[in-house]
Amino acid sequence: MRYFDYFCFEMDKQQLHNDWLNKRKKRKADLTVEHLLAGIQKQDITLLSSAITMIESTLDTDRVKSEELIKKCLPFTGKSIRIGITGVPGVGKSTFIESFGQLLVNEGKKVAILAIDPSSSTSGGSILGDKTRMEQLSQLKNVFIRPSAAGETLGGVARKTRESIFLCEAAGFDVILIETVGVGQSETLVHSMVDFFLLLMLSGAGDELQGIKRGIMEMADALVITKADGDNIKKANLARREYQNAMHLFPPKKSKWQPKALTCSSYSNTNMDLIWEAIVAYENHTKVNGYFNVNRKEQDKFWLRETLNENILRGFYGNEKLQELLAQFDQKVIREEETSFTAAEKLYQLYIQNLTNGNI
Amino acid sequence: MRYFDYFCFEMDKQQLHNDWLNKRKKRKADLTVEHLLAGIQKQDITLLSSAITMIESTLDTDRVKSEELIKKCLPFTGKSIRIGITGVPGVGKSTFIESFGQLLVNEGKKVAILAIDPSSSTSGGSILGDKTRMEQLSQLKNVFIRPSAAGETLGGVARKTRESIFLCEAAGFDVILIETVGVGQSETLVHSMVDFFLLLMLSGAGDELQGIKRGIMEMADALVITKADGDNIKKANLARREYQNAMHLFPPKKSKWQPKALTCSSYSNTNMDLIWEAIVAYENHTKVNGYFNVNRKEQDKFWLRETLNENILRGFYGNEKLQELLAQFDQKVIREEETSFTAAEKLYQLYIQNLTNGNI
Repeated sequence: MRYFDYFCFEMDKQQLHNDWLNKRKKRKADLTVEHLLAGIQKQDITLLSSAITMIESTLDTDRVKSEELIKKCLPFTGKSIRIGITGVPGVGKSTFIESFGQLLVNEGKKVAILAIDPSSSTSGGSILGDKTRMEQLSQLKNVFIRPSAAGETLGGVARKTRESIFLCEAAGFDVILIETVGVGQSETLVHSMVDFFLLLMLSGAGDELQGIKRGIMEMADALVITKADGDNIKKANLARREYQNAMHLFPPKKSKWQPKALTCSSYSNTNMDLIWEAIVAYENHTKVNGYFNVNRKEQDKFWLRETLNENILRGFYGNEKLQELLAQFDQKVIREEETSFTAAEKLYQLYIQNLTNGNI
Repeated sequence: MRYFDYFCFEMDKQQLHNDWLNKRKKRKADLTVEHLLAGIQKQDITLLSSAITMIESTLDTDRVKSEELIKKCLPFTGKSIRIGITGVPGVGKSTFIESFGQLLVNEGKKVAILAIDPSSSTSGGSILGDKTRMEQLSQLKNVFIRPSAAGETLGGVARKTRESIFLCEAAGFDVILIETVGVGQSETLVHSMVDFFLLLMLSGAGDELQGIKRGIMEMADALVITKADGDNIKKANLARREYQNAMHLFPPKKSKWQPKALTCSSYSNTNMDLIWEAIVAYENHTKVNGYFNVNRKEQDKFWLRETLNENILRGFYGNEKLQELLAQFDQKVIREEETSFTAAEKLYQLYIQNLTNGNI
C-alpha cells in the first residue's frame, strides 16, 4: 500500500485512487455466499481465506452470511481426518508441523493447518502468526495455513476454528491439523473438535516445567517426544519408554485405543512416517469399532450447546433497548447504588419481563 | 471413614452409625446463612471454608444460600489489597508465596491465598492443591490457603474465586493473593479481580519457553525474576535490567504507574521486602490519583456482565421443559436430522416462543 500511495502521488493521484476504491468496493460486494461457496469448492485459496475472515468478523451482516455459507458447506464436510496438536511453547510445534505436513503432502494429501490460541485476544500475537516459521510448507501446493482467530472468549475463538474446519473440508482438504498451546482449557476445546489428539513433549524438561497436567496426557492418542536427534536420541528414547509405561496405567479410553508413545525429529525428518501410521491405524481401529462416528456425534452435541449459548446471549446483547438498560445499570454500579450481583439480577428480571410482555 | 466403618462393625454397629448420620445431618442443617456469616465475621476458618465450599457447589439450594451470604458479606468487603500472581509452572510460584506470605504475616497482615487454575476441570489436580508445598506458611495463624475451584468453564472457576475474595475480606483478611498459571486467558480473568498484578519470570529460560506473551507482560505492575540466588544472581540481575528497559517501551498504563522489574529468592528470602514496598507504593500512588477506585468500578462492570451471562444461561438450562427439548434435539443431531447449528437455532426460537407465551 505504501508504494502504491507514492505511485498515485506521482501519477494522476486522485483519479487512480478513486478507481482503486471503486474496485475494492466492488470486490467486497462480489463476495456473496454463492460466490464464496463456488470459490471454496474450486479450492480457490483466496476465497477460502475471505470466507474464514467473514466467519471471524463480528459484524452482524457478516454473521448472517457466515451462517448461510456454513450451512451450504455442511453437506460437503466430514471426510477429512482432524488432528489436534498440542505442547508447551518451545516444544517445537511449528517445526513439527513443517516436517509432518511435508510428509503428508508427499503422501498426496491436501493439508489445512488451523490454530486455537487463547492468548491471541490479549496479545494480538498468535500461534502460526508467522508463516515464515513454516517457510517450506507454506509454499507447497495443497497446503493452507491460517493463524488463530482472535476473540473475546476462548470458546468464541474455538467455535470459529471449528467452523473453519468445515470450510476447509468443503474445499477438499483431507487432513486438518489444529495447533494449540499446551496449557489449560484450549486443549479441552481442541479435543472437542478433532478425531485424533497428538501431544508433543520434550525429553528431560520434566512434566512440571512443561505445564502438562495428567488430564491432558490422558486425552492424548499419541505422545511424541520431539527433538530426538544428535546427543538427544538416548534421552528421548528413555522418556518414550517411561511415558509408554505411564500410559498403560491410565484408565482405558472409550475408543479402546491404546495410546502410543513415539519419538521424532523435525530437524532430520525422523519417524514422521511412524506418526502418520499410528494415526491411520487409529482411524481404521475406531471406524471398525464405531467410535469414530460416535465421537463426532458427541462433539456435535457439545457444539450444539456452545452455539445455543451464543444465540441466547446474543438475544440480550444484540438488543438496543437492553443495551440502554445495561448502560444505566453500569452507572448505578459506578455510583455504588447497586453491586454487580444485584445489578445482574435486576437486569435479568427486566429482560424476562420485556420478553414476556412482548416489548422487545 | 474406612477405619470408622470397621470400628462401627466391632461395636454396636447400627446404633453408632445412626448416631453419626444424625450428627452429620444436624451439622449440615446448622450451616444457615446467618451461622456462616457470624462464623466468617469471627474469623472461624472452618466456617469460612464451608462457606467457600457452598459457593463452589452446583446444587440449586446451595446457590440460593451463596447469593444471600455474599450479599450480606458485601458491606464488609473492599478493604484488602488484592494481588494477582502468575508465571509458568516451574517458575516457583508456591515457594514465592511461601516466602512472601511469611513476610506479610511478620508485618502483621492477615493473608488469604486463593487460586484460579484453568486445568483443574480436566485434571482434577490444581495449583495449591498440595498444602505441603507451603508447609510453613500453612501452619501460621492469620493465614488461609484455599486451592482452586474446579468447574466446567474458566469463567465459572474465576467467578467463584472472586466471590471467595469477598468472603475472605469479610473475614478480615487484608492481603489477598490470587495465584494462576502463566499461560492464556486465566491471567485476563485474574487481572479483572485484582488491584496489583505480579508476574514471576525465570532468567535465561527465554520468553518463548516461558509461554509469556507480550500482552501478559503489559498487564504486569511488577515483574519479578525468581531464583536469584547462588550462581544465578548475575544472570537474574541482567534479566532484570533487560526487562526494565523493555517495559519502558510499553504503552503507558491507565494507572500512570511505571511497572517495576525486581529480582528475588524464595530460598534465601531475598528482596521480599522490596516487592512489598513496590505494592504499597502502587497502592498509595493509585489511591492518590483515583485509579485504585476507578479500576475496581471497571472490574464491577466486567463482573456485572459475567454474572448476567450466567443468569441468562441458567434461565435456559435450569428449566426442566427446556432440558427435555434439548434432549430431543440431541437425538435429532445423532440421527443426523439436524446439524448442531440448525438445532441450536431452532432451540433458541422455541425458548423465546415459550417465554413470550408464558409457557415456562
